[in-house]
Amino acid sequence: MGKVKHRRLDQLADLCRQVGDAMQRASVALLDADRAMAEKVITGDAALARARASCEEQLLAATDLRVVLTAVHAVDTLERMGDLALHIARAARRRHPAHVLPDELRVPFADMGQLAITLANTAEQVIRTGDPELAAFLDASDDTMDDLHRAVFATVTRADWPHGVATAVDATVLSQNYERFADYAVALARRTSVIARSELAA
Amino acid sequence: MGKVKHRRLDQLADLCRQVGDAMQRASVALLDADRAMAEKVITGDAALARARASCEEQLLAATDLRVVLTAVHAVDTLERMGDLALHIARAARRRHPAHVLPDELRVPFADMGQLAITLANTAEQVIRTGDPELAAFLDASDDTMDDLHRAVFATVTRADWPHGVATAVDATVLSQNYERFADYAVALARRTSVIARSELAA
Repeated sequence: MGKVKHRRLDQLADLCRQVGDAMQRASVALLDADRAMAEKVITGDAALARARASCEEQLLAATDLRVVLTAVHAVDTLERMGDLALHIARAARRRHPAHVLPDELRVPFADMGQLAITLANTAEQVIRTGDPELAAFLDASDDTMDDLHRAVFATVTRADWPHGVATAVDATVLSQNYERFADYAVALARRTSVIARSELAA
Repeated sequence: MGKVKHRRLDQLADLCRQVGDAMQRASVALLDADRAMAEKVITGDAALARARASCEEQLLAATDLRVVLTAVHAVDTLERMGDLALHIARAARRRHPAHVLPDELRVPFADMGQLAITLANTAEQVIRTGDPELAAFLDASDDTMDDLHRAVFATVTRADWPHGVATAVDATVLSQNYERFADYAVALARRTSVIARSELAA
C-alpha cells in the first residue's frame, strides 16, 4: 500500500517537473526570440494534457479522500502553470522574429524566468520529500518575484518610457504570467507538503 | 440517496451565484468608482472562502469519485473566478476617487461586466438543471467576450491613445480579468453539466 502511494506522488512530482521544463523553454523563447523553442512548448502542451489526465486517472484508485482532493487541486494548479508557460511561448512566437521585450527589460525577465524555474523545481522536491524547510525558501522567492513584477510595472509606466504602449502592455502581461506562476508554485508546494509527509510516513 | 446528491449540487450552484454576485458588485465598483461597493467585494471574500470550504467538506461524503473530482475542480474554478472579481474591486479601490477607466472604455467594460454576470448565472443554471442547450449559449457568449477583449486591446494600443501607459496597462489587465472569468465560467459549466445530468437522472 505504501508503495502504491509513493508511486502516486512520484507521478505528480514528474508532472511538476514537466511544467517547470515548459516554463524554462518558454523563457528561453522569450529572451532569445527563439521560435523553435516556442513551438516546442506549444506542441508539447498536448503531452502535458495527457500526463495530467493519466495522473488524475491514477488518483481515482486512491482510498484516502483528503489525499485525492489535495492531488486534484495540485493537478489543477499544474494545468494553470502550464497555461502560463504556453502564454509566454505564444507571445514569443507572435512577435518573432522581433523580440517581445526591449533590452532594458532583459535582466528582470531573465531573473523572473530563473526564479519561476527554481520555484517549480522546489515544489517538485517538496512533493517528493515533504521537506518543511523548503517551504520557507519558497516564501522568500515568491517575495523576490513580487518585487521584480513591481519593478517591471514601474519601468513601463515611467513618464519617459520610450517603447510605446503596446510593448508596455506586453511586458506587464508577461510579468504577471511569471508572478502568477510563482504564486501557484508556492500554493502547490504548501498544499501538497502535508500529504507528502504523511504519505512518506505511511 | 438521490436527495443527498441533489443538495450537494445545489450548494455548488449557490456558490456559483455568490461568485456571480461578487463580479456584479466589482463591475459596479469599477464603472461608478464606487468605493463602498468595492469594499463589499473585498470584505465579502472571507464569506466566499467559508462557503467554498463548506462545499468541499460536503463533497468528502460523496461516494462517486468521478463526481467528487468534477466538483473539486468546480470549487477550484469558482475560487479563481472569485479572485478575478476581487482584483477588479481592488483596482477600483486603489484609484478611488478617480475612475480607473477613461470614458471611452466605459461601454466595452459595461458589456464585459454584463456578459460575465450572465455567464456565471448560466453556469449556475447548468449546475442546477444539466440543460445541454445552455452550453451552446455559453460558447457564443465566450466568443463575444473575446471580441470585446481584443477591441479593448486595440483601443489602448492605438497610436493616438491619449490616456498614457499606466491607464492602458490597467485597462488591459482588467479586460483580461473579464476574459478569464468568462473562460472559467464556460469550463465550469461544461465540466459540471455531465454530472448534473447524471445526478438529476439518479
